[in-house]
Amino acid sequence: VTRVIVTGARGFLGRQIVAALDRRGMEVHALTSSRPDPTIAAAQWHTVDLLAEPVRALFERIAASHLVHCAWDTTHGAFWSAEVNFSWVGASLSLLRAFADAGGTRFVGVGSCAEYDWRHGFCCETVTPLQPATTYGACKRAVYDLAQRYCAARSLSFAWARIFLVYGPHERPERLVPSVVRSLLAGDVARVTSGTQLRDLLHAADAGEAIAALLASGLEGPVNIGSGEAVPLRRVVEMIGALIGRPDLLALGAIAARPEDPPVLLPDIRRLREELGFTPSHTLASGLSDAIEWWRQSAATAR
Amino acid sequence: VTRVIVTGARGFLGRQIVAALDRRGMEVHALTSSRPDPTIAAAQWHTVDLLAEPVRALFERIAASHLVHCAWDTTHGAFWSAEVNFSWVGASLSLLRAFADAGGTRFVGVGSCAEYDWRHGFCCETVTPLQPATTYGACKRAVYDLAQRYCAARSLSFAWARIFLVYGPHERPERLVPSVVRSLLAGDVARVTSGTQLRDLLHAADAGEAIAALLASGLEGPVNIGSGEAVPLRRVVEMIGALIGRPDLLALGAIAARPEDPPVLLPDIRRLREELGFTPSHTLASGLSDAIEWWRQSAATAR
Repeated sequence: VTRVIVTGARGFLGRQIVAALDRRGMEVHALTSSRPDPTIAAAQWHTVDLLAEPVRALFERIAASHLVHCAWDTTHGAFWSAEVNFSWVGASLSLLRAFADAGGTRFVGVGSCAEYDWRHGFCCETVTPLQPATTYGACKRAVYDLAQRYCAARSLSFAWARIFLVYGPHERPERLVPSVVRSLLAGDVARVTSGTQLRDLLHAADAGEAIAALLASGLEGPVNIGSGEAVPLRRVVEMIGALIGRPDLLALGAIAARPEDPPVLLPDIRRLREELGFTPSHTLASGLSDAIEWWRQSAATAR
Repeated sequence: VTRVIVTGARGFLGRQIVAALDRRGMEVHALTSSRPDPTIAAAQWHTVDLLAEPVRALFERIAASHLVHCAWDTTHGAFWSAEVNFSWVGASLSLLRAFADAGGTRFVGVGSCAEYDWRHGFCCETVTPLQPATTYGACKRAVYDLAQRYCAARSLSFAWARIFLVYGPHERPERLVPSVVRSLLAGDVARVTSGTQLRDLLHAADAGEAIAALLASGLEGPVNIGSGEAVPLRRVVEMIGALIGRPDLLALGAIAARPEDPPVLLPDIRRLREELGFTPSHTLASGLSDAIEWWRQSAATAR
């Protein structure tokens, strides 16, 4: 049985990774800075603040062969330029070293499309320059570069999952899909941009599955994580309107796109599809239906 | 009076920076992980291990406006790939944040020519790609990139001194100049390469003076530190032979250059000369004479 540590295990993406690794029959050690969530999967939970506490003793006790490092601060809006990004650089390197010293053999880090120079629009792992425009992207990129070198020096296997636009259950409510879904479910107008931006959306369960598959494989280096389907955000929003049955509440073009919002931001997913052999299980329609259903139940529970 | 913190203050380069800042009338707070060395200058010494101890309280107590971050591990040979380089990334960012939080306004970091892609030979701050071949270079480059972004975000003034080949008193004895000098002073044969490599040598006192001038200026961004004089290493070795009066002990070509040793590694020093207005006080001959004299006395003291 493969023993794997997942950091950020209660997070939006981390919980899907934990579930996907558990489905593969791995022994999952789930690290969180908050409370364990046993509803996610049959994992062994460990509560630890990676920014404040040493992990050496814990990692030696667990003695995992695999590590998925998903923990990071992603407070909506603030995370792009938050100072805590710098803390995650040192913390990420520290935990990688503790993992290697405890006998670990394969590391998978969770990176971001924000590592790329977005002026290129279409992002290919081996071609697109890593020229982040944000603090978040720069710190992710620094961890990518240094962790890759560290793993090479210590003969650890290394892969790096670059996440694009992931949506689904437990997403931060201020983000695009949840905010439109929640407005429409509440009968409120959803004010959005004109939606010409071309994006790649992936359901969180598929993203978790892709990262679990990446971990289980021996694939090395950076791998973009996406669906491979380019959609204008307008179509996403209109699909939500149709699925909820309230297209009348969509105010497309009511707000301006932010100037730093690129017209095209798409992953080249050939490594993911051809080298890893991954295909998503959700279509955009089925994925959005699932997200809508989750927010509907979430609202019902809150009442 | 400008109050400045210098890390790595007892080191080969740090001690020259401390002395140069003291000559400029600054109030120098010298940090070292070992013992204070009051012979260097009229500095206030603080013993602290930057890799193990928090510096927040110390930095708040000092309340310096300026910081020169020179501390790093540079054990001869080992430092290029040592694991401790990764520790310096987190430690450097932590101390920069503690400095900013304590009211600091200008940061100067000590970087390295190892940040550049050496295949380019001639290194210009604004042109040459930062593509380090070594762990040391990658970690220095990561601190450069992240510290620059951090300073921009916190409205701190930022400069980064990229050091090339510095020699002089207190240099590690295994390095080129000291090893040849010590062999010749001892009457032993100095086995060296054929010495065709083109390099830029700067006396440590001039390097310290350049960094002190950079700190005192408002110049922003990366600045190469060098003499501007390109010399083949053969000429350096032959000059040492002539100055000591034992050219007969030089075995040029007795050993092969390492394959990773580039034929040309020179700084573009136009920023240093034109924007900062710095010129070295030593010629190569006067600088080597000084170094030889220091090693002579050092050997006499050791007897």
